[in-house]
Amino acid sequence: MVSKVLIANRGEIALRVLRACKELGISTVAVHSTADNAAMHVRLADESVCVGPPSARDSYLNIPQIVAACEITGADAVHPGYGFLSENARFADILEAHQLTFIGPTASHIRTMGDKIEAKRTAERLGIPVVPGSPGAVTEDGEAMKIAKDIGFPVLVKASAGGGGRGMKIARTEKELPHALATARSEAGAAFGDDAVYIEKYLEKPRHIEVQVFGDGAGNAIHLGERDCSLQRRNQKVWEEANSPALKPQQREKIGTICAEAMKGLQYRGAGTIEFLYENGEFFFIEMNTRLQVEHPVTEAVTGLDLVHEQIRVASGDGLSLKQEDVTFSGHAIECRINAEDPRTFVPSPGEITHYHAPGGLGVRIDSAVYRGYRIPPFYDSLVGKLIVHGRTREECMMRLKRALDEFVLDGIKTTLPLFRDLVTNHSVRRGEYDIHWLEHFLDGEVG
Amino acid sequence: MVSKVLIANRGEIALRVLRACKELGISTVAVHSTADNAAMHVRLADESVCVGPPSARDSYLNIPQIVAACEITGADAVHPGYGFLSENARFADILEAHQLTFIGPTASHIRTMGDKIEAKRTAERLGIPVVPGSPGAVTEDGEAMKIAKDIGFPVLVKASAGGGGRGMKIARTEKELPHALATARSEAGAAFGDDAVYIEKYLEKPRHIEVQVFGDGAGNAIHLGERDCSLQRRNQKVWEEANSPALKPQQREKIGTICAEAMKGLQYRGAGTIEFLYENGEFFFIEMNTRLQVEHPVTEAVTGLDLVHEQIRVASGDGLSLKQEDVTFSGHAIECRINAEDPRTFVPSPGEITHYHAPGGLGVRIDSAVYRGYRIPPFYDSLVGKLIVHGRTREECMMRLKRALDEFVLDGIKTTLPLFRDLVTNHSVRRGEYDIHWLEHFLDGEVG
Repeated sequence: MVSKVLIANRGEIALRVLRACKELGISTVAVHSTADNAAMHVRLADESVCVGPPSARDSYLNIPQIVAACEITGADAVHPGYGFLSENARFADILEAHQLTFIGPTASHIRTMGDKIEAKRTAERLGIPVVPGSPGAVTEDGEAMKIAKDIGFPVLVKASAGGGGRGMKIARTEKELPHALATARSEAGAAFGDDAVYIEKYLEKPRHIEVQVFGDGAGNAIHLGERDCSLQRRNQKVWEEANSPALKPQQREKIGTICAEAMKGLQYRGAGTIEFLYENGEFFFIEMNTRLQVEHPVTEAVTGLDLVHEQIRVASGDGLSLKQEDVTFSGHAIECRINAEDPRTFVPSPGEITHYHAPGGLGVRIDSAVYRGYRIPPFYDSLVGKLIVHGRTREECMMRLKRALDEFVLDGIKTTLPLFRDLVTNHSVRRGEYDIHWLEHFLDGEVG
Repeated sequence: MVSKVLIANRGEIALRVLRACKELGISTVAVHSTADNAAMHVRLADESVCVGPPSARDSYLNIPQIVAACEITGADAVHPGYGFLSENARFADILEAHQLTFIGPTASHIRTMGDKIEAKRTAERLGIPVVPGSPGAVTEDGEAMKIAKDIGFPVLVKASAGGGGRGMKIARTEKELPHALATARSEAGAAFGDDAVYIEKYLEKPRHIEVQVFGDGAGNAIHLGERDCSLQRRNQKVWEEANSPALKPQQREKIGTICAEAMKGLQYRGAGTIEFLYENGEFFFIEMNTRLQVEHPVTEAVTGLDLVHEQIRVASGDGLSLKQEDVTFSGHAIECRINAEDPRTFVPSPGEITHYHAPGGLGVRIDSAVYRGYRIPPFYDSLVGKLIVHGRTREECMMRLKRALDEFVLDGIKTTLPLFRDLVTNHSVRRGEYDIHWLEHFLDGEVG
């Protein structure tokens, strides 16, 4: 078992990992920027090391400083949390070179899954359903038309080098394709200096459904069911559920088994999430995240497992604590990401928290590193806390969420709490009827 | 289903019931004394009615005022919580006479179980194991000796009219019995004006184990396993667990079934707890509490049920939401009662809470009605909050409790938090090796 873990992160996830370490009797080292001297993860860790100035690039992303902090404190393992260095293969390599345990997958798996095209090829090879499309860049319009007809319209023309929606065009009919190709190439060339584009099937109203997997690195792997994260704004998840209101048990079983088998094939180590778009009963691979995710607590709520405990066990070489047949799902869970943002404009709202009182009682979990008097620095992401509720049924869960939101006091800054108070009473949300575009339409006032 | 519940209580249990009502879509009415104008149960209820001055006798125990509050607000049901009017049969009768639903058992069952001797007779008749002893008062020394020899020494001589340990003497041998009888009679006469005494088997080092039962009032009843509340100080429970570290599954099953069958025989309605002393594998009935108990959350943690939801369902005539075969037990739970008391002298410590930050994260539940700036009034009991932790194993639960206690900030008053920080690392507690006297010996420095 690892004996001293350095937590290379901040905020609620640093606290989350710290709690798990304490529960396993493992010593903890916090790292922090000068902006985070008074942060809760620093206060509650056994030791702490300042690794740089406020800028994340110079502190939380500062690999030499973090490795030095391990050596100074004698930490024998690093938990990267999510974001920051969690999917940085070079960091994993460097830790290994220093005989430090990286609590996560191998650098090679991080690399493979970090490359969009390589990840899709790997997924396909492992039997994971992917979005039909061109095998690579398409240069000829005739070839593009043939592929588009094969997979069926509408199709999406995407920049090979792209991201953030730039160089991305929908063609709903054959007639629209040439124009879509031309404008996508032109935008891609301008934005990325590379006009290569590829074609994928376009899904009109998909849900975002992701499968939590866990491997021991030796060919054993399990799945822990799925999460539905369809309520998003600008590709940022806002509200997550386990299980998905859209899936039947047989579907859960089927896609879960596919993912677990794939992870066995990969000899994957640690926690991972395989993300899909889901439409009309079909799953289409988007990407794999080779780390713990923000929304992992909903899976913990329905499975009764502690995923960070599992991560540490696996990293220590103790393997998984359970087999697939021991995984059971109980009730329903919802997580709300409470951000320090204006609930209408989503402009960040850093500042001092003047009152703070979290809800309590049965079925309510709070993961937050803020407290009364804490000053939220403007340098990092705006997540100030996660409210997770668990109930025997989705209906009970929604009612519990409503009462917990009513109790939540977080003053002095603007937060997204009012948005959740709107969502929890919304008819579409209550019925579980939403796709990945619904929340944006709701925020634009296009749906009620 | 009842539609508006008046909660005839205060503090954390009023909030507990209020949360359950909100989750079921039921309107809530808080009642409060003038000392509780700013209390959280008042702030969070849909409506509130002041029912009297600070003295509980004139407010929370003021039946005419509480009935009037129902009539003013149109409440159709009353939840009594624990303490106050929760085991007052006359109150249950009066509510019935006003066509108001009492969320609890029938007045007749409250009466039967509220009378010590009647309760023991009833338990025995229903097949619940009781402490062997004289069937009633013993007046002759010869008869006393015969009974004592029958049940075996040591025996306890107890005042029939007694309570609080007065008129109670242990006889460890035949030789000690005449003196024990004489002094017990003399003390009883002086203390209660009645020198009648009876004889019971004396248990040297029993544990306190209690079984949670639930009936629908129509002859269906289930048990929800047991709680171990052996860590007590002056008969006040301090730390409670589910399940008991002392029982094997077959024992749980056996005593649970006996209790559930007894409740079927009684046609018991609602939540109840059958309390036992437990020694050398044997259970001995102490008493039955015909209400929700302070420590009910540990049962909720291991069964996944919401006992207040169940109470309301049963009171609404909807019956129990599950059958015995659907009850499962998962993991281990511990509750710590955090009192506003000096942790060494147990002298109450009312006053203003200057800082408050409750622990969070996986497996942690907080039931508390206090907040920063709240002034604890000196008029009521000193419970300020309950910390409940749940883990897959007792060991995990203990480690989680330790880290949660480390996080808990509650300043401005003295609390029992330091006591729990001592207990959670104590070897006897960690091994689950304690009887009902252990904590007092520990506090006296007699055990380490």
